[in-house]
Amino acid sequence: MVSKKTLKFVKSLQLKKYRKQEQSFIVEGAKNVLELVRSNFRVTTIFATPLFLNDNLNLLQKFDFEIFEVDEGTLASIGSFKTNNTVLAVAKTRENIPIKVNPHEFSLLLDDVRDPGNMGTIIRIADWYGINKIICSKECADFYNPKVIAASMGSFTRIEVYYTELASFIKGAEMDVYGAFMKGENVHKINFGPGGLILMGNESKGIDPELANLNISKIHIPRFGGAESLNVAVATAVICDNLKRGKGS
Amino acid sequence: MVSKKTLKFVKSLQLKKYRKQEQSFIVEGAKNVLELVRSNFRVTTIFATPLFLNDNLNLLQKFDFEIFEVDEGTLASIGSFKTNNTVLAVAKTRENIPIKVNPHEFSLLLDDVRDPGNMGTIIRIADWYGINKIICSKECADFYNPKVIAASMGSFTRIEVYYTELASFIKGAEMDVYGAFMKGENVHKINFGPGGLILMGNESKGIDPELANLNISKIHIPRFGGAESLNVAVATAVICDNLKRGKGS
Repeated sequence: MVSKKTLKFVKSLQLKKYRKQEQSFIVEGAKNVLELVRSNFRVTTIFATPLFLNDNLNLLQKFDFEIFEVDEGTLASIGSFKTNNTVLAVAKTRENIPIKVNPHEFSLLLDDVRDPGNMGTIIRIADWYGINKIICSKECADFYNPKVIAASMGSFTRIEVYYTELASFIKGAEMDVYGAFMKGENVHKINFGPGGLILMGNESKGIDPELANLNISKIHIPRFGGAESLNVAVATAVICDNLKRGKGS
Repeated sequence: MVSKKTLKFVKSLQLKKYRKQEQSFIVEGAKNVLELVRSNFRVTTIFATPLFLNDNLNLLQKFDFEIFEVDEGTLASIGSFKTNNTVLAVAKTRENIPIKVNPHEFSLLLDDVRDPGNMGTIIRIADWYGINKIICSKECADFYNPKVIAASMGSFTRIEVYYTELASFIKGAEMDVYGAFMKGENVHKINFGPGGLILMGNESKGIDPELANLNISKIHIPRFGGAESLNVAVATAVICDNLKRGKGS
């Protein structure tokens, strides 16, 4: 039996305040949890249905964390999913440690990307394109928000993230910075080098004018029809696809 | 004052059954409604806050539909948005009429794309890339679902949609069909012609095996990192961007 105190603790991790205080976050669903336990995140507790345990107990027992068998209703009540018939894990968050970027690889900069679904989708896209470093302005959605983790589909385990003040970071990085704007050089015509920083802006306001005034190459995705804009996650994918052209197998 | 009967009617349009019966659908939010009134959809009623009417009454009075002034609480109670401080419109749906595709332009085929958010995002992406025809399998999310309309950000006004059985449609179309698979020709290396059909599959199962066995060119988006897959809307955007390369200004 799981104590009420433990259940209350897990539930509290839906709020950033308690995630910060407890240095812990929740991961929900089979795919995300299976990627989590194989990653170098430190898992503290697993809450799983008999069905999930039956399929995965051999794997789970190799690790050193508490495992509680619970029913679907309990999982739904302590997590953010409406229904969950598999598993929920609690793991320790990582400290916000400065990331070293280098000019031979691409890294993402996110300015004020507030929607957790967009943030999680961007993490998944970055991981698909082999981009493992994401630097976020402090206004961005919290990396450990359950909706970010869920939308990342396991990719959160392979991404380093760092929250900081972007203007100073850009000035300090001393490398090519490409910013996505509504007007700029056509991404189809740019010969992207081996690396640099890709800056994406807020869902409705775009890139902050203070950042736009820095030494940034303005780029844009060509438009062929009537839509006014693309969603920020969709635009990130199109840009990543363009800068990786000719670099794969 | 709006009658309770009218409010109940509008609220019923959140369900497909009533949208079909009444041949009507709802459109929410300033951007979507302003695009709607300028399109050739037939608007029957507008429910708007004093704030929205103050800004847009000159435009709205040019048209022949009923306008009701309501408060934010009423808008939220009859629509699908949690909060809405602007406007909600009721318009007539279009009939499901066969679309003629031609080999000199690209059209999208969606097989079993069930999530309304994905469907709406795909409509917005198609519109950005100047693709105006979308053919959907009958299992796809309803084009007139309020979440589809909302996610399309006004692009639903510029897209022709047709729900049908895709296998017969593909056989009858007699043109190049490119299907997105996990394995296939690299989209970066394909010389797409001037047009054809682009087939995207279900969020978790991909393209139905029955369709995959038809005469379809299998294509894939190259992967550079650890993510297992891309979201279907994101993949649609990357493919559209590839097939439109070199075709714009």
